[in-house]
Amino acid sequence: MSTHADRLAALRTQLKDDALDGFVVPLTDEHMSEYVGSYAARLAWLTGFDGSAGAAAVLPEQAAIFTDGRYTIQVRQQVDGDLFAYEDVPQTSVAAWLGEHAPQGGRIGYDPWLHTRAWVKAATKALADNGAELVAVERNPVDQVWIDQPAPSDAHLEPYSQNLAGRSSESKRAEIAETLKGMKADASVIAALDSIAWVLNVRGKDIVHTPVALAFLIVHADGSADLFLDGEKVDDGLRNHLGQDVRIHERSDFEAHLEGNFAGKTVAVDPERSVAAIEMALERGGAKVIARRDPAVLPKAIKNEAEVAGHRAAQARDGAVIAKFLRWIEEEAPKGGQDELSVAAKLYELREATGELKDLSFDTISGAGANGALPHYRVDEKSNAKLEMNSIYLVDSGGQYLDGTTDITRTVVIGTPTAEMIDRYTRVLKGHIAIARARFPEGISGGRIDSFARQYLWEIGEDFGHGTGHGVGAFLAVHEGPQRISPPGGAYAGADEPLREGMILSNEPGFYKEGEYGMRIENLVLVVAHEVEGRRVLGFETLTFAPLDRRLIDKDMLSNAELAWVDRYHAQVMEKIGSQLDGEDKAWLEAQCAPL
Amino acid sequence: MSTHADRLAALRTQLKDDALDGFVVPLTDEHMSEYVGSYAARLAWLTGFDGSAGAAAVLPEQAAIFTDGRYTIQVRQQVDGDLFAYEDVPQTSVAAWLGEHAPQGGRIGYDPWLHTRAWVKAATKALADNGAELVAVERNPVDQVWIDQPAPSDAHLEPYSQNLAGRSSESKRAEIAETLKGMKADASVIAALDSIAWVLNVRGKDIVHTPVALAFLIVHADGSADLFLDGEKVDDGLRNHLGQDVRIHERSDFEAHLEGNFAGKTVAVDPERSVAAIEMALERGGAKVIARRDPAVLPKAIKNEAEVAGHRAAQARDGAVIAKFLRWIEEEAPKGGQDELSVAAKLYELREATGELKDLSFDTISGAGANGALPHYRVDEKSNAKLEMNSIYLVDSGGQYLDGTTDITRTVVIGTPTAEMIDRYTRVLKGHIAIARARFPEGISGGRIDSFARQYLWEIGEDFGHGTGHGVGAFLAVHEGPQRISPPGGAYAGADEPLREGMILSNEPGFYKEGEYGMRIENLVLVVAHEVEGRRVLGFETLTFAPLDRRLIDKDMLSNAELAWVDRYHAQVMEKIGSQLDGEDKAWLEAQCAPL
Repeated sequence: MSTHADRLAALRTQLKDDALDGFVVPLTDEHMSEYVGSYAARLAWLTGFDGSAGAAAVLPEQAAIFTDGRYTIQVRQQVDGDLFAYEDVPQTSVAAWLGEHAPQGGRIGYDPWLHTRAWVKAATKALADNGAELVAVERNPVDQVWIDQPAPSDAHLEPYSQNLAGRSSESKRAEIAETLKGMKADASVIAALDSIAWVLNVRGKDIVHTPVALAFLIVHADGSADLFLDGEKVDDGLRNHLGQDVRIHERSDFEAHLEGNFAGKTVAVDPERSVAAIEMALERGGAKVIARRDPAVLPKAIKNEAEVAGHRAAQARDGAVIAKFLRWIEEEAPKGGQDELSVAAKLYELREATGELKDLSFDTISGAGANGALPHYRVDEKSNAKLEMNSIYLVDSGGQYLDGTTDITRTVVIGTPTAEMIDRYTRVLKGHIAIARARFPEGISGGRIDSFARQYLWEIGEDFGHGTGHGVGAFLAVHEGPQRISPPGGAYAGADEPLREGMILSNEPGFYKEGEYGMRIENLVLVVAHEVEGRRVLGFETLTFAPLDRRLIDKDMLSNAELAWVDRYHAQVMEKIGSQLDGEDKAWLEAQCAPL
Repeated sequence: MSTHADRLAALRTQLKDDALDGFVVPLTDEHMSEYVGSYAARLAWLTGFDGSAGAAAVLPEQAAIFTDGRYTIQVRQQVDGDLFAYEDVPQTSVAAWLGEHAPQGGRIGYDPWLHTRAWVKAATKALADNGAELVAVERNPVDQVWIDQPAPSDAHLEPYSQNLAGRSSESKRAEIAETLKGMKADASVIAALDSIAWVLNVRGKDIVHTPVALAFLIVHADGSADLFLDGEKVDDGLRNHLGQDVRIHERSDFEAHLEGNFAGKTVAVDPERSVAAIEMALERGGAKVIARRDPAVLPKAIKNEAEVAGHRAAQARDGAVIAKFLRWIEEEAPKGGQDELSVAAKLYELREATGELKDLSFDTISGAGANGALPHYRVDEKSNAKLEMNSIYLVDSGGQYLDGTTDITRTVVIGTPTAEMIDRYTRVLKGHIAIARARFPEGISGGRIDSFARQYLWEIGEDFGHGTGHGVGAFLAVHEGPQRISPPGGAYAGADEPLREGMILSNEPGFYKEGEYGMRIENLVLVVAHEVEGRRVLGFETLTFAPLDRRLIDKDMLSNAELAWVDRYHAQVMEKIGSQLDGEDKAWLEAQCAPL
């Protein structure tokens, strides 16, 4: 079972045994997580694809892997085209492809713990239109053939300090209880792991890069809650922390609990953040299920003072690491011998040296030259490229610290940039500044300001193929909803979510020249409120502080206001992180942060 | 039957006779027209409301009128609140309100020739959820009680010169036939009156302000067509113009024709631009109905060279009229005695004097002081306000000329403006310039650039409550789809339609201070293509030429690029319309168009 061909063949045999004519393998877990525990990495095991979004469909004679524009190149490098046809979403979808390719009268299996209800409905219809049937499986056939499938993590949950969280779990549950009353619901099922961690003021170690624990939570209209998780994850410290109002159950009892305790009750379930199996269990038990957004999502996104203070501290700590790293790159790269892996290792080492690092917040994107042109590039031994003279290096990375989650991208030149590189970097910077300086009334969504980041690339017929910004958690998920700065109607929800004071987002326009280089400038920003002539106006305060590569900036392309922004930003960088540096590092930073 | 109370009572009696417990009165005709013939102005007859969007619902004891934010004030002025409750959309909808208020088991009537299928489905569901039923009526009960209902217009259709249209009807039908083949359809039913006029190169006089004729058209995959219209509208000239491939039928035969001629055939129907009755008739006759956009909509929106040339000529002619008008206002208004009606009459007189005016393209919005703060204000004897010293006057108007449709808004000060007026006007102007100067790649929709127009108002916590731009026809509808510059997801479709070379749109940001004044700057713009380093980049060319009020511009708030834009625009105004003016008019224009 060492090859993907073997694994695919084994799965097909299993499907036959299960009287299925096909099966869908998505990339998620029972919580609709973006990052999953190794036990749930079924798509990677089956196909070799390890990007952050995708799915596979397996039929007796055909199989396909579905990825979006971010992974067009990567999927072809990682997945054997003889085994899986490459299919692009949103041009097609798993449901549409199955509708077209599934055998007449065929039974296509899916795991109801790995799909939303909406997906199940759409796929059921697409298959029915073609005379095939979508069938929920009792046991996931991939798990049956994956002999050495890792067990889910048994790490303990740890209480998260109320000083850092800024408020008690009790107050959060009381707020949710109010929300439930407003929607005339008796309870809400919360399946999103970061929501559970936020509501209970706990953190875990079950998912790589995201300090959450595998669990389900039911919050009731009286503010009490039922928590479902493996018993071995629980200790007395946790029990004390959670208190009497949070009843602890075995995770394996969750489905039966949903079936047995809500007859005649109204239960709110988030259709995007819960799997179909949850709604199905509730309905079997006679509950009335109403589709409502997870009531923790919005309060979690709106950071309180303590969370903002924590973020400021974490960003300053992390920015100092980046500054040291950039100076090291500037000194070492021209000597030759450095590659994407070695410099990413150096960056990790510098973050570790803070003594505060809990984890990276995602796999470092360390992209030299042409590899930088892949916005979601992940370096491995095979792709690992050298940092060459007169080329561009892009590094997008972040750390998980107890007081905050960071996410920063810097782009530097090694040696001498071309005029085109300077032009493109300056356009990306102008877009970044346009977001940083944007002002807008209450009620405006991120989708309404997204184009501000693109306008200077649009002028020359260029653009970048990803969103401008995503929400960021407080020692939680580095990609956090509900808000987003991105074109409306795209692959991600959130572009229509109004921005609110206290939300934290990334500001990360880029430019990618296929086969040559990629550039991105990313800082985190906090939504803040100003008063103008008695009216409330929202805008951003930049939270991330690390120098920009001044060699890539064409001063003449900047307006006076943009120039002032860069100089002021660099002065703030000096002020916020200067004290953490000394000797040559500090001298270097001073030179970087001098007025342009 | 002279009062709205009498009319409402008569309708209720009729409903009782028809065994109905309610009825819905929308504001449209059998073609989903924005402007309707007087015979179809049922909502205005019943309620007194004469805005351009709204609906009423009548139950035995209750009635309500539904309007959007544009008409919040107007509806309260025109409609008796004792007869009709004021309801706001999109906060509620006719369907939702009926669902809530209709009697249990009640039968609510609707005219299937006045609603889309989507509306019928939504309303049926909303009523069914409440135990009531939506019932299609055979005869509209309003028509039965409206004793002096005007007859539909019997005006002749007139051929539209191929020189102005730029291509033959045959070539347009051939293009549509190709589209039909692409969608595997045998025919397309075209109900939109401007589409029919465009496809056949004909114009009519049946609808106020829009030179179209009441008709239905079916275009077949062989390029031939069936046209349904009242026989008295047809003469030999028209027959010759249409040729053999366009078969003429009586309008009254349309429904039977749909029922009788498409069994087993696939017929494309535009779900937004066709009424439910059309789809119902086709389905009764055994046709397979597929929902596809009216195949004329996109080619009609993309103007050809002849249409663009016509537009340029019409805009220049109309701009000269506006220049003369603005000079007259500047001279006459301070003398006192002018009011909204008198100056609108003067403007009409000046347009008439060109000898080319066929009609206004919409009712002139002539808004003095506080009335200007209503974006869709329509002056009448009751609302008619004086043009006072030291106030703002806004005029939004347009003409229908054989060679093009115009739509222009200018805002002027009478006397001396306040600092706030200058600030707001300059912000509106900056937004207008941001659209005029925008560049973007192929594929970008109007919804993606809409915020460019708002950003300078957003800075101070202000905004404007309407879209930034709409498509404009070529001697056709002044509001033409499918493209739009407006926030995504709003009341109007089109924000997600990619902008294409040859499309014409308005560029009309505004600012409205309730109770004080309104400002808007509107020019029409043409989407043009540039080449930048071998890449195709789209942008706008302004088509409308008339001076801006320089007294309202704060030069210091403009960037160098914006200042250059204004000066260049004014130089072009002089160049394009100067030759049509003489004497004091010309001297005045020269002064207006001097560099700022």
